[in-house]
Amino acid sequence: MVPRYARPEMTAIWEPEAKYRIWFEIEAHATEKLGRLGVVPESAGKALWDWWATNPKVDVEAIDAIEAVTKHDVIAFLTWVADNVGDEARFMHQGMTSSDVLDTTLAVQLARASDLLLADLDELLAAIKRRAIEHKFTPTIGRSHGIHAEPVTFGLKLAQAYAEFDRCRTRLVAARAEIATCAISGAVGTFANIDPSVEEYVADKLGLTPEPVSTQVIPRDRHAMFFSVLAVIAGSIERLAVEVRHLQRTEVLEAEEYFAPGQKGSSAMPHKRNPILTENLTGQARMIRAYALPALENVALWHERDISHSSVERFIGPDATITLDFALKRLTGVIDKLLVYPERMQANMDRMGGLIHSQRVLLALTQNGVSREDAYRLVQRNAMKVWESDGRTSLLELLKQDDEVTAALTDEQLEERFDLDYHFKQIDHIFDRVFG
Amino acid sequence: MVPRYARPEMTAIWEPEAKYRIWFEIEAHATEKLGRLGVVPESAGKALWDWWATNPKVDVEAIDAIEAVTKHDVIAFLTWVADNVGDEARFMHQGMTSSDVLDTTLAVQLARASDLLLADLDELLAAIKRRAIEHKFTPTIGRSHGIHAEPVTFGLKLAQAYAEFDRCRTRLVAARAEIATCAISGAVGTFANIDPSVEEYVADKLGLTPEPVSTQVIPRDRHAMFFSVLAVIAGSIERLAVEVRHLQRTEVLEAEEYFAPGQKGSSAMPHKRNPILTENLTGQARMIRAYALPALENVALWHERDISHSSVERFIGPDATITLDFALKRLTGVIDKLLVYPERMQANMDRMGGLIHSQRVLLALTQNGVSREDAYRLVQRNAMKVWESDGRTSLLELLKQDDEVTAALTDEQLEERFDLDYHFKQIDHIFDRVFG
Amino acid sequence: MVPRYARPEMTAIWEPEAKYRIWFEIEAHATEKLGRLGVVPESAGKALWDWWATNPKVDVEAIDAIEAVTKHDVIAFLTWVADNVGDEARFMHQGMTSSDVLDTTLAVQLARASDLLLADLDELLAAIKRRAIEHKFTPTIGRSHGIHAEPVTFGLKLAQAYAEFDRCRTRLVAARAEIATCAISGAVGTFANIDPSVEEYVADKLGLTPEPVSTQVIPRDRHAMFFSVLAVIAGSIERLAVEVRHLQRTEVLEAEEYFAPGQKGSSAMPHKRNPILTENLTGQARMIRAYALPALENVALWHERDISHSSVERFIGPDATITLDFALKRLTGVIDKLLVYPERMQANMDRMGGLIHSQRVLLALTQNGVSREDAYRLVQRNAMKVWESDGRTSLLELLKQDDEVTAALTDEQLEERFDLDYHFKQIDHIFDRVFG
Amino acid sequence: MVPRYARPEMTAIWEPEAKYRIWFEIEAHATEKLGRLGVVPESAGKALWDWWATNPKVDVEAIDAIEAVTKHDVIAFLTWVADNVGDEARFMHQGMTSSDVLDTTLAVQLARASDLLLADLDELLAAIKRRAIEHKFTPTIGRSHGIHAEPVTFGLKLAQAYAEFDRCRTRLVAARAEIATCAISGAVGTFANIDPSVEEYVADKLGLTPEPVSTQVIPRDRHAMFFSVLAVIAGSIERLAVEVRHLQRTEVLEAEEYFAPGQKGSSAMPHKRNPILTENLTGQARMIRAYALPALENVALWHERDISHSSVERFIGPDATITLDFALKRLTGVIDKLLVYPERMQANMDRMGGLIHSQRVLLALTQNGVSREDAYRLVQRNAMKVWESDGRTSLLELLKQDDEVTAALTDEQLEERFDLDYHFKQIDHIFDRVFG
Repeated sequence: MVPRYARPEMTAIWEPEAKYRIWFEIEAHATEKLGRLGVVPESAGKALWDWWATNPKVDVEAIDAIEAVTKHDVIAFLTWVADNVGDEARFMHQGMTSSDVLDTTLAVQLARASDLLLADLDELLAAIKRRAIEHKFTPTIGRSHGIHAEPVTFGLKLAQAYAEFDRCRTRLVAARAEIATCAISGAVGTFANIDPSVEEYVADKLGLTPEPVSTQVIPRDRHAMFFSVLAVIAGSIERLAVEVRHLQRTEVLEAEEYFAPGQKGSSAMPHKRNPILTENLTGQARMIRAYALPALENVALWHERDISHSSVERFIGPDATITLDFALKRLTGVIDKLLVYPERMQANMDRMGGLIHSQRVLLALTQNGVSREDAYRLVQRNAMKVWESDGRTSLLELLKQDDEVTAALTDEQLEERFDLDYHFKQIDHIFDRVFG
Repeated sequence: MVPRYARPEMTAIWEPEAKYRIWFEIEAHATEKLGRLGVVPESAGKALWDWWATNPKVDVEAIDAIEAVTKHDVIAFLTWVADNVGDEARFMHQGMTSSDVLDTTLAVQLARASDLLLADLDELLAAIKRRAIEHKFTPTIGRSHGIHAEPVTFGLKLAQAYAEFDRCRTRLVAARAEIATCAISGAVGTFANIDPSVEEYVADKLGLTPEPVSTQVIPRDRHAMFFSVLAVIAGSIERLAVEVRHLQRTEVLEAEEYFAPGQKGSSAMPHKRNPILTENLTGQARMIRAYALPALENVALWHERDISHSSVERFIGPDATITLDFALKRLTGVIDKLLVYPERMQANMDRMGGLIHSQRVLLALTQNGVSREDAYRLVQRNAMKVWESDGRTSLLELLKQDDEVTAALTDEQLEERFDLDYHFKQIDHIFDRVFG
Repeated sequence: MVPRYARPEMTAIWEPEAKYRIWFEIEAHATEKLGRLGVVPESAGKALWDWWATNPKVDVEAIDAIEAVTKHDVIAFLTWVADNVGDEARFMHQGMTSSDVLDTTLAVQLARASDLLLADLDELLAAIKRRAIEHKFTPTIGRSHGIHAEPVTFGLKLAQAYAEFDRCRTRLVAARAEIATCAISGAVGTFANIDPSVEEYVADKLGLTPEPVSTQVIPRDRHAMFFSVLAVIAGSIERLAVEVRHLQRTEVLEAEEYFAPGQKGSSAMPHKRNPILTENLTGQARMIRAYALPALENVALWHERDISHSSVERFIGPDATITLDFALKRLTGVIDKLLVYPERMQANMDRMGGLIHSQRVLLALTQNGVSREDAYRLVQRNAMKVWESDGRTSLLELLKQDDEVTAALTDEQLEERFDLDYHFKQIDHIFDRVFG
Repeated sequence: MVPRYARPEMTAIWEPEAKYRIWFEIEAHATEKLGRLGVVPESAGKALWDWWATNPKVDVEAIDAIEAVTKHDVIAFLTWVADNVGDEARFMHQGMTSSDVLDTTLAVQLARASDLLLADLDELLAAIKRRAIEHKFTPTIGRSHGIHAEPVTFGLKLAQAYAEFDRCRTRLVAARAEIATCAISGAVGTFANIDPSVEEYVADKLGLTPEPVSTQVIPRDRHAMFFSVLAVIAGSIERLAVEVRHLQRTEVLEAEEYFAPGQKGSSAMPHKRNPILTENLTGQARMIRAYALPALENVALWHERDISHSSVERFIGPDATITLDFALKRLTGVIDKLLVYPERMQANMDRMGGLIHSQRVLLALTQNGVSREDAYRLVQRNAMKVWESDGRTSLLELLKQDDEVTAALTDEQLEERFDLDYHFKQIDHIFDRVFG
């Protein structure tokens, strides 16, 4: 976790105090249910909740001090609670194992993190949608391979981003369901010393699903899937960030990150306005992707349960969610305040001498009886001249002077093929598909 | 792709001829629909299908020869079709772009590959289920950290594997839906020169969904998700493979890969019987995981469309699906024929002098009024003696001789805590959860 | 391995016949040395070499047929040799284990592959150097963040690429040394049944170094390092490929991949000339990077030796080296034939109204007594005007009209700051550093 | 960075104050040299160093407050220094660019981190060597595929680890040299506004090498290589950690992590002693490996310089070095205090009824004239009986009763093949190779 790439809402989820609060709730809910089952005195759960109702400070340092002796974090915590609650606390944790607490807590933390991320995605989707509608019919050149191809609209670019992040949202909802499970099944997952109804009770209280078959640990294929979904979302962030970086290039300059008054682009060159937010997002995306790898390696625990995943998750649990949260927020800000330059888009589109209309001429020729091969040859030979003139000659004019072309198409027919609006007649249809 | 790790059913999907057959179908369906729309003569689609009905050989070498000149694969293919079908063929591909064909073809191939993989998973699930039921009550030690913990059954281990691969199946169904989309939207995805109804028609014919907003290419977040799911499945394969490798270790030997007559384990040591299939699977899992990475990097195409993803997919499309198909089949064989040694499981469980029952004694002590801290200390001091005797002393006997213990528990109460069946009373419940 | 991305020189190294030829040489050299040591009859080695001198065909299918029964590749091979050589062959492989043959063979293959790759790098370095010297003083804009910064020369860009690939060469030489080791140490690496002098003899004959302490297998940290170095080289390939893609963009077009007569850039748009070779290289680089991952996971073999690395290496041994070889050759061709457009470079540089000289004005102001903060403010306020005019106003003219500026600098002093050659006075020095 | 996996010596390198101290030194050395060159007044450098000699507190919060306005970290720092030093400070940073400071600082930090890591490796190597010599002739079974193979010594296992970490040390020395370079070359690396001798001077003062051709940034192939080397070292850590985990398994228990008094292995099962340190190391190794990936993706900066690598390095610079430092220290502690059980090693070796000597019998048979095929068959048929008896029958006894065997070998000759010391005759030779 890098502090400058972290928001307090997300870091709060991962702080020791938040963790211990969840631990307590799991233990207290379980003790309460055990009381109802008659396994422990009903007074035990009550004592725990009564103390909790006093809103006691969670003394992280005191717990750490105990752990320094016991070298076991859950035992340290239980000891600290017992020190505060008194004798009734000895009924806590009956039939449970540490992983019951740790893994269920991680589930709660990841579910909470998912909720923040889903809210982030909603804000991002709203920002993209607003700008997409704003620029629904702002013409801009569609590029392929970085080369001018045919006209699109800037809103269409954003509609594609919307559809992509909407898929990311669907994936994250599924990923949240994957990890929001509760395990209270004892040392090796047999429920030998604890009734399955305790698991069901605690799961219900915490908004989780009971893990059908845990083994002490909640199986890590779930977490591998979760962090892989974060990695896919990072890929989509990178795609849009790279797009802004391209658009802001000096020679393109069709859009720009918002540049604040007082901001300095370069210590040495006062004229610079750099796409630093999206470059920054590019790097963050690389990190979020990287965190999926150790999650994938975590699946193959030995004999259904070892503890090698634990140190990994101490890193990637916070780091992946905090960084993704920050990145989504940052990207939302970039899109929300993006400076868009329609005039420059038009100017760029015009600079190729009409080459971007070459396909329509090709089609017109074949429709008027020229073979595809010949049509391609005719268009290409004129297009190459325009290309070599760097857009200073006009494709339309050259075609009008090409006898083989004019044998098939009149000037009027040719001119009709250079109409921009022709390309946008399905924009409404596509927007309907995307925005419903 | 490594030939020895490939099955013909899957490799067939990726052969050039299969690819060209899909190309033809896309072009012919599109031309047919264009005919109905009146964009091209209806005779064009008919000519294509009539020729196809003659079951012509797809001449891969001829197409390659044309590509060597045009340096463009789709144009080469169209030229070859035109050479065979004649004049009517010039109406093919009207308003389409190469990616319409290439990306939709990849969708068909990945969907077919998914269908094979789903069938593989079904076979694997069936094998695991059969063995799980067979060994539902075969006692074996549950280990955590590689250390004996408490008793489980061998069937329970397999039930966990079943639940895990069942989740993998669900994920693969979702991943298949992600990539089974069809794009026929033209050079930059605007449908400028082709009506969206063509896309819908072709999608329907090929069993695909129309891509809501393609950009020439089908967005690669879909493929990133697809290959990430394959990577997660690989992780689950590795988990089960590693488990078999552990069980076959000389000192454990609770199960073994089937050893064929005539097989030699080692050129130098005639006594060896090695878990080579599952070691092999471990390595294959590493490869399938690795293939997800470039798929994730493929998402950020420039300006919605470049071609950098293409070379990546020429590798990972075949390599990831072929290897995963092989691995699933191999794992199914391993599980199906796994030699299981219940007697050895029992012997291993007995070798720790009853230490595996320590938790139950701990609980009994606390239930009879001993503080948790004291109970832990009492059990641990006796357990450590057993541990240091390497299981040659009996925990039960030591406890019976410990005055502080016997002050809280009678001999009979102690003996009751060393009962194996106690641990298995919820196995039915868990099997109900998993197998329904 | 993708056939279209493979050169026969490299694939030959990985063909079964090549592998078996190395196997034979290892066995024959070892048998010869064992003969000299008196462990086996001297006639045994002689019989092997005599047969080999007849240049026998390596019958891959026959060996495969034997393996189908024995399920052990080395035993199958030894059996086939014995079938051909006769009775003397029974002395082969004495005291050796399969891994002695397999790992040493991999070392020979990777060393040969390295030699090809080193030759590839030499050709690439030669091509870069030639073009660097050709364009040593071709002015072009240096960009940072994709934004115009200050002038550089095109040769300087290439000098940087040269220095980078020269480092790659040094790394590959080291990586080759890492994996070029020979192990003939028996079943667990103790030399229990074979004298270390055999290893030394075979190593010497094959141009390898004896592995100081093998354990049956040659330790896989060596291979992890080797494939990581290939991954780093792939990163450098990607860097240069991405640079060409940027330079070929429509709006930039300062350089272009060579475009062959008859080539078609797009099936739909006859005007397109796309940087497909460098896009292709971008994807290949992603693959080569990905192959390093499973090599890193291969290090942690169980108990110094298991066989999980083997299936991984059947993939990445050929795939990583074949693809990197192809990519280096392709990149060499791209650089060698790159179309460079100095006039366009100049035109692009001129389009910003002189903004690229802003730093020099800043420095001149501070040198003439203006505080850094004030100087920055003065330059920035004029630069922003030029920026907003899209380069249609001139920074020099604006500065001449700014009273605060002219209070510190005369017109002549200002003009002097807009001199291009000023930026190139250290190019000779840098070229001396790079090309020596 | 996870605080519990961090040592203060390493985290100190990455704290803001440490960074700013290096920034100051770079600026002050450069200003001093510029003074000698007559570019700025000599008094400027003197003023800076005089202030520094007062040992001023680096006020991180004040600098942060300025950055909040300027949104540029280096400008903020320079402003803060100017606020403290006064007018002379305006000559700082002349002709330099931010990256000159940032990249050179990263070089200093990574070099310092490398020095700590090299010291860590030296300690680890010393610990391994001490234990290797201690157990040079402690017999233990060599396993392959997890299955008993032939005898080795525990010292030999450690000698292999020593050789591996010694290679890691060599690699890290090379990696340190890769990144210990200094760039003071200005906005685009042309030295347009600063003489190369300044770079040479600063490099010398900081113990770095001048970067032959920087481009504003120091090329990131260097860092890709550096973090890849850390990843390889992590692989070796994982290998040794996994070995300890295997040895501590209940059924093997040939060695154990030291278990502190008062330590609790499990909250539920008082008898547990788990290999938690090495499991922990396994997870940390996964993280350190993962950090190499984004470093590899960082190489392909746009136009020789963008800033996307920066956010990545804010993570992996500290995280990879801090975690590796911690892991090396932890591994050193594990090896140093490892509880080794020679008696259990012997007992495990004995449990297979002499199967581990099968190869020697095979060789003896072939040496006495039996064909290899027959010899293998004879040994295997007896070995399989021992195998199936779970080591309760003796291979030696069975062989003595096999007429085909005794036709070739006398009882005495057979017994000789079951001698343990036979396997250790080259241990001295191997130790000489490894420890010199």
